[in-house]
Amino acid sequence: MNTQGSSGHRVAVIGAGSWGTTVAHLCAQNVETTIWARQADIANVIANEHINPAYLSGCELSESLGATTDIEVAVAAASVVVMGVPSHGFRTVLADLVGHLRPGTPIVSLTKGVEQSTLLRMTEVIAEIAPGHPAGVLSGPNLAREVMAGHPAGSVLAFADENMAASLQSCFARPTFRVYVNGDVIGAETAGALKNVLAIAAGMVDGMGFGDNTKATLITRGLSEIARLGTQCGGRVLTFGGLAGLGDLIATCMSPLSRNRSVGEQIGRGRTIEEIVSEMNMVAEGVKSARPVWEKSVELGLDLPIVEQVMRVTHEGVSAQDALVALLDRPVAHELDW
Amino acid sequence: MNTQGSSGHRVAVIGAGSWGTTVAHLCAQNVETTIWARQADIANVIANEHINPAYLSGCELSESLGATTDIEVAVAAASVVVMGVPSHGFRTVLADLVGHLRPGTPIVSLTKGVEQSTLLRMTEVIAEIAPGHPAGVLSGPNLAREVMAGHPAGSVLAFADENMAASLQSCFARPTFRVYVNGDVIGAETAGALKNVLAIAAGMVDGMGFGDNTKATLITRGLSEIARLGTQCGGRVLTFGGLAGLGDLIATCMSPLSRNRSVGEQIGRGRTIEEIVSEMNMVAEGVKSARPVWEKSVELGLDLPIVEQVMRVTHEGVSAQDALVALLDRPVAHELDW
Repeated sequence: MNTQGSSGHRVAVIGAGSWGTTVAHLCAQNVETTIWARQADIANVIANEHINPAYLSGCELSESLGATTDIEVAVAAASVVVMGVPSHGFRTVLADLVGHLRPGTPIVSLTKGVEQSTLLRMTEVIAEIAPGHPAGVLSGPNLAREVMAGHPAGSVLAFADENMAASLQSCFARPTFRVYVNGDVIGAETAGALKNVLAIAAGMVDGMGFGDNTKATLITRGLSEIARLGTQCGGRVLTFGGLAGLGDLIATCMSPLSRNRSVGEQIGRGRTIEEIVSEMNMVAEGVKSARPVWEKSVELGLDLPIVEQVMRVTHEGVSAQDALVALLDRPVAHELDW
Repeated sequence: MNTQGSSGHRVAVIGAGSWGTTVAHLCAQNVETTIWARQADIANVIANEHINPAYLSGCELSESLGATTDIEVAVAAASVVVMGVPSHGFRTVLADLVGHLRPGTPIVSLTKGVEQSTLLRMTEVIAEIAPGHPAGVLSGPNLAREVMAGHPAGSVLAFADENMAASLQSCFARPTFRVYVNGDVIGAETAGALKNVLAIAAGMVDGMGFGDNTKATLITRGLSEIARLGTQCGGRVLTFGGLAGLGDLIATCMSPLSRNRSVGEQIGRGRTIEEIVSEMNMVAEGVKSARPVWEKSVELGLDLPIVEQVMRVTHEGVSAQDALVALLDRPVAHELDW
């Protein structure tokens, strides 16, 4: 039923990776939705066979999801554009499509992480490349395969204008995919960028053989570091305790599938970062982010001990054991001493 | 080295269960510490063999930890009393010892949960039975065996007078047991009482076969319910995001050893609450708390959907599947719509 939904929206999802495809599949069950894939073979199997074996093998996609390799076709009639491309390609792809957008079309980022060269958040990139287009994010504990399997999950749709977020909620929400409105774009986006650094620390806890207490303590103190840095960057503190903050942090720190957690686990077992990175075809986001995040904290005069140790382990050859000793050597103060 | 520590404190720990014994073991390495056990055989093996096989089999206790069955001997010289007895015996044991305390001796509760007959928190019981004695709590993600094994963990020591907490910190803190000061007794204690209800819901998620997304979403939305109720009861919102709140909640919702999580897991697999309870020699705390907690939320005009469903599942025979449908049927609103 490739018809326009009751809300009258038309969604264009840009990028046919696992999460972009999943979000497009969700939207297509609500409103008319087209996904843009760079590769013709991927666009073809999505449009004709309703599958994306390269990224979501074994999953059936909504039959009403359209697909194209023509970015103008994808976005020209869209009332909302969803960006599902990695941070390193975000600016270029957005520049390619912005000229084809209708005025004022909102743009939703699915991308977690900052642009490496500028350290900008994705909505800041949107503001530069597509001024006049409201920029928001969809973020939460959302592993593509679990969402495709219909496991209940929640996510936050954040726009500075909460009414905008509320008006788009019905494009994304499904019975098992609950979409909460939040007005704090900076908080949701900052949390998403920082969680991968903490996931490395969580993996180290696993690799060193510690249990649930240690993991829970690490996540809690790590969330405190995210919130301290994130509020200094303009986020609101309660957002960090929500689905885009805490929710995503827990899932990333717990999931055996998290690349960043896995890097930390290997470090915890005594492997060097050089050995680990040499075997990866793509450097894990948290490894790339650790130093700029730590530098930002120093610039702001904040003391983020877990972030600092992840940076030292991933960039200065410090061992997991020495990082642990450094953390435990610190004086303990007030829990809320920010 | 059964000598007085540099801080000059003398600690009496009342109750030789697994957590009381663990805390006594931590304290004994810092300051002169005596544990009170009701049973002579337990006091004897602690004092003479430095073990407590009934509650911590295989663990070696500090040789400097003293033990007695005489509650007057235990507390008469104490500068701080630590209550490690279950909620149902808390009032009686405290009444037995209060006459032997030096004036103004602070009392620290290790007990999570409320008094069933009165719904009072333990520090409220202390205020009734031992007025004039400052009442605090030590609470966090602290599984006794993991702490005994030296796995790093953190905990919150909360007194309304933060200077009191700061002055007692060194009694409890060890290199791998980090004790943070907090002034919010109500928040720390309320969080500890509510987490067991949420742990049942987390177990249901496990029993129904859902993954990390669903668990992370449940914990995050559950924490929001704890914080909404806890702040109405006088707690401070950030305490719920700290070690006594979030930290303990994560550990309890994740640990295979949690009794409450295990009850939920069995419900999630389709067993009835009657079957489960009939096999337990002691009803899990979360089952007992679910109805009074829900009633309190109704009285305060709060909408706590997860707490409500746990109550219906544990007291009204609702199935896990129907509880899930009820949760997913609800309208989704603003994330921070309290």
